[in-house]
Amino acid sequence: MNEFALIQRYFAGLTPPGADVLLGIGDDAALLQAPPGEVLVVSTDTLVAGRHFPRDTPAEAVGWKALAVNLSDIAAMAATPRWVTLALTLPEVPERWLHAFAQGFATLARQYGVCLVGGDTTQGPLSITMTVLGSVPLGQALRRSGAKAGDALAVTGTLGDAALALQHWQQGRAVIPALRQRLDCPSPRLQEGLALRGLATAGLDVSDGLAGDLGHILHASGVGATLFAEALPRSAEFDAHAGDDALSLQLHGGDDYELLLTIPPQHLAEARLRLSALGTPLTVIGTIQPEPGLRLRHNGYVQTLEARGYQHF
Amino acid sequence: MNEFALIQRYFAGLTPPGADVLLGIGDDAALLQAPPGEVLVVSTDTLVAGRHFPRDTPAEAVGWKALAVNLSDIAAMAATPRWVTLALTLPEVPERWLHAFAQGFATLARQYGVCLVGGDTTQGPLSITMTVLGSVPLGQALRRSGAKAGDALAVTGTLGDAALALQHWQQGRAVIPALRQRLDCPSPRLQEGLALRGLATAGLDVSDGLAGDLGHILHASGVGATLFAEALPRSAEFDAHAGDDALSLQLHGGDDYELLLTIPPQHLAEARLRLSALGTPLTVIGTIQPEPGLRLRHNGYVQTLEARGYQHF
Repeated sequence: MNEFALIQRYFAGLTPPGADVLLGIGDDAALLQAPPGEVLVVSTDTLVAGRHFPRDTPAEAVGWKALAVNLSDIAAMAATPRWVTLALTLPEVPERWLHAFAQGFATLARQYGVCLVGGDTTQGPLSITMTVLGSVPLGQALRRSGAKAGDALAVTGTLGDAALALQHWQQGRAVIPALRQRLDCPSPRLQEGLALRGLATAGLDVSDGLAGDLGHILHASGVGATLFAEALPRSAEFDAHAGDDALSLQLHGGDDYELLLTIPPQHLAEARLRLSALGTPLTVIGTIQPEPGLRLRHNGYVQTLEARGYQHF
Repeated sequence: MNEFALIQRYFAGLTPPGADVLLGIGDDAALLQAPPGEVLVVSTDTLVAGRHFPRDTPAEAVGWKALAVNLSDIAAMAATPRWVTLALTLPEVPERWLHAFAQGFATLARQYGVCLVGGDTTQGPLSITMTVLGSVPLGQALRRSGAKAGDALAVTGTLGDAALALQHWQQGRAVIPALRQRLDCPSPRLQEGLALRGLATAGLDVSDGLAGDLGHILHASGVGATLFAEALPRSAEFDAHAGDDALSLQLHGGDDYELLLTIPPQHLAEARLRLSALGTPLTVIGTIQPEPGLRLRHNGYVQTLEARGYQHF
């Protein structure tokens, strides 16, 4: 089976082209119609088996997660995702695996109306690269560089679940299903990103760990911050199963895909209200300060915190 | 060194953002301003070491080729390339290799004003996935589906050089430098694609072999074709060094990245004139016919030809 037939068979029917796709899969390139007055948003992420997900991750979860981590970047720009290309490298063509992968991918793609418009399949060790394209009205994108001293530092959902699942898996322990779900099938915070337009001054998605990702905002905005250890939001499962290194998992563990935001105090109530309508908690976990550097307030003491996250090299 | 620093160091300065880049590398996603009135053109290609290029290919050539094969798809749509994302998977971080790779990439990117707007670096077996974004005025893209019976079948440049270089390399022979150059550093036919707007009825780039790629045009357009074996254009080096399988290399060898076009007879002279101004030969190599199927006229006889090209699986 050639690569063209491969893509066509498993994916083409799963995400029917919308009105903004003038030409989809099957030519040299796709032709797309961006909404007038909006700017284009583009993000690329690669997932390598054994590095970005455990090798025993179900194919359906791999398909979901590869799209989810890319959509999460679009969410972090407060943008609307529209199209995606898929570059899939596989050691062989296992039909059942591919079918399940496509199902996981398509389930999430349909949920957000994202259309697959192109791709490439190659033989090699399993890895997936997606490029997601979206759009946002001019001037409304949520960048990393807008944080101001005095802004509250807030995060959606809870932190640490995915890192705890990974830790249990690495230790060969049974992984609590709810935690494994957070690791394998993260939910991109797309509606939350849109809801925070005009309220948040800066934002990103927590993919490599809270401390490291926060460092990007501080660097881009030229500010510092203090995090409140006791305020970091935890799920019931995390609370019940995390050990002595719970705080470290919350600070440095990756794969949460929650949105980290800086919000001026006068917008906090409105931000909470809008996210509560979506059923998503928003928790203040720190404050932006003029002094450079990242600090952690823990048990009443303030210490310096290294802005490090998960490093791929 | 983290992945972010890696991309920043080697690539960011090499392709300075143009006026159409509102936000480049360094945030969750890039923000791009597409030209008003034009539609977006998107293509993705992956190159895996040992599969899409010999493992001993110089790093500079790998950087060039990975971009070139993607630009070639944009050329085949008669579109203008604007932006590119780069997903680079590397077993380690060899600084010299990366520096040379970036140089090869940047040389070609600068030549066509293409700006690197995002990417991802991961650890794993060497492979490169790029997504090139471009634009084309509405209605002017060159699709695969527009070929009509009576159209001439024409090709830019020459066919078979890259396949011959690969053959010599696979046989452990010294590879003629001019042929190796065609294999390692193909030139995307971007100016040629633009010059043929309004003249060609269908087109694509010959990446997997003439016969297989022509099959895509025939299938998409619902027509057939006869190729003229003696008309297939050859370089002087190919003529001097190809053996008994020269015709097979020209028909089924990949990696030429020439444009294959269908052109109504009344537009042929104008098409030749425009390409001649670019120094690019345009050769009629066959004719489009109403009868389905692909045929080859060779030594006065017509035989059926299988529309097969290089298969990645």
